[in-house]
Amino acid sequence: MSDSKPSVTLYSAPTPNGFCASIIFEELKAIYPSISYTPVKVNMSQNEQKEPWFLKLNPNGRIPVIVDHTNCDLPIFESSAIALYMVQKYDKDFHLWFDPSSDPTSYGQMLQWTFFTHGGVGPMTGQLAHFVRYATEDIPYAKTRYLDETKRLYGVLETGLQNRDFLAGPGRGKYSVADIKTFTWVGVHERVGIESLGEFPNLKAYLQRCRARDAVQAGYKLLQ
Amino acid sequence: MSDSKPSVTLYSAPTPNGFCASIIFEELKAIYPSISYTPVKVNMSQNEQKEPWFLKLNPNGRIPVIVDHTNCDLPIFESSAIALYMVQKYDKDFHLWFDPSSDPTSYGQMLQWTFFTHGGVGPMTGQLAHFVRYATEDIPYAKTRYLDETKRLYGVLETGLQNRDFLAGPGRGKYSVADIKTFTWVGVHERVGIESLGEFPNLKAYLQRCRARDAVQAGYKLLQ
Repeated sequence: MSDSKPSVTLYSAPTPNGFCASIIFEELKAIYPSISYTPVKVNMSQNEQKEPWFLKLNPNGRIPVIVDHTNCDLPIFESSAIALYMVQKYDKDFHLWFDPSSDPTSYGQMLQWTFFTHGGVGPMTGQLAHFVRYATEDIPYAKTRYLDETKRLYGVLETGLQNRDFLAGPGRGKYSVADIKTFTWVGVHERVGIESLGEFPNLKAYLQRCRARDAVQAGYKLLQ
Repeated sequence: MSDSKPSVTLYSAPTPNGFCASIIFEELKAIYPSISYTPVKVNMSQNEQKEPWFLKLNPNGRIPVIVDHTNCDLPIFESSAIALYMVQKYDKDFHLWFDPSSDPTSYGQMLQWTFFTHGGVGPMTGQLAHFVRYATEDIPYAKTRYLDETKRLYGVLETGLQNRDFLAGPGRGKYSVADIKTFTWVGVHERVGIESLGEFPNLKAYLQRCRARDAVQAGYKLLQ
C-alpha cells in the first residue's frame, strides 16, 4: 500500500466472486505499480454484507464492491462489472482486455465468455453448492439437476478451450477478464462434489495455467 | 430488410434473453436506419438450438446468437455480450449506452446492473420457472427458494430505481443496455407465479415505461 490515499477500496471475501475482484487488482498492480488499493475483508460469517453501511454500497448485500475514490467515491458492485470498469479505467495498454475499436473480435469473445460464466457457471455452481452443502433438506432431484448442469457447462468451456490457452484473443488466446471470471469459479469444483476434471483435459490444464500466475496467487492469498 | 447483404444475422426465439437481443436490434435500427439485420427464429420446441449447425455458432446450445457479416462472420453468444458488442460497434453517439471515457460513472452503473440481471434476476427467474412449470417432481423447498430469491432481487431493483426512471445515467437515468437486459426478465413475472408487482411500485412503473417504447414493441412482435 502506498502512503498516499489509495485510488480504490475493495470490499471482498474468499469466494469465487471475491477472488475474481482481488485477482483483477493484483494483476493491475503488477502491471501498473502506481495503482493503489485498500482491500477490506468483509466478515460473511457475521453477515457483515447485510449491514446498513454495506447495503448503501450494494443494495444486493453481496461482495465484492469497490469504492472508487478517484471518481467521487462511486460504488460499483458485481465482480464482472468491477473487472470491466477497472480495466477500462486503468489498463490503457490492454494487458487484461482488448481494444474494442481495433480488435472487436477479441473484445466480443471476452464479453461472451465473461457473461457465459457470470450467468451460467457461477449461478449453477452456486445452486449446486447450496443443495450439496447448505440446504436444510436432502433433495436428490436438485442435486442431480445442478451437478449435471455444472458439468455440461464445463463441457462448453472444454470446447471453447480447444487448441487454446485462454478463452478470448487471437491464436491460442490471451489471458483476460474472461479467464479471471471463469477459472475462479471452476477452481471450486472439488468443494461442490466434482472431484476431478479428468473428463475435461483442456479445462484442467487451463485451470493450472491460470493458477500458476503470481498475481493470481497473490489475489487468493490476500483474502485468506 | 434492405436489398444489400445485411450486416448481422440474429438467431433468436421468444424468451427473455431472445427478446433482449431483438429489442437491441430494433432500438439500433430506429436510431441508425442504415443498420440492417436478418432475424432468424430458432424453433426451440424442436430443439433446433442443439443441432450441429447451431452448436458451431454457440457450443452452449442457447439462443440468442449473432453472426456479424461485417467481421468475418464472427459469431457472438450471450444476450448481454451481444448488446454490449452491438452498441460498441454501431451506437457511436451513445444513445443506448455511455461513453466509458467521458462518463465512467454511468458506464460503470450500466455494467453493474447488466451483470446484476444477467447473473441474478435471469438465472433465478429461470430456476423458478423450472420448478413451477417444468420439473418432473413437485419440490416445495425449491419453489419457495427461487420465489423468495426472485422477489428479493426485485426488491434490489426497487431500491435501485428510487427517484429514477432508468437504472444507469445521471439524474433520473437514461434508457440503456442495462434496462433492456433487465425489463425483459422482469416482464415474465406472471409466467413464474408472481402475479403482481404491487409490492414494487418503482419496478412496476419502470416496466410499463420500458414496454411503451416503439422499438420494444417491435422487438417483442418480431419473435412472436
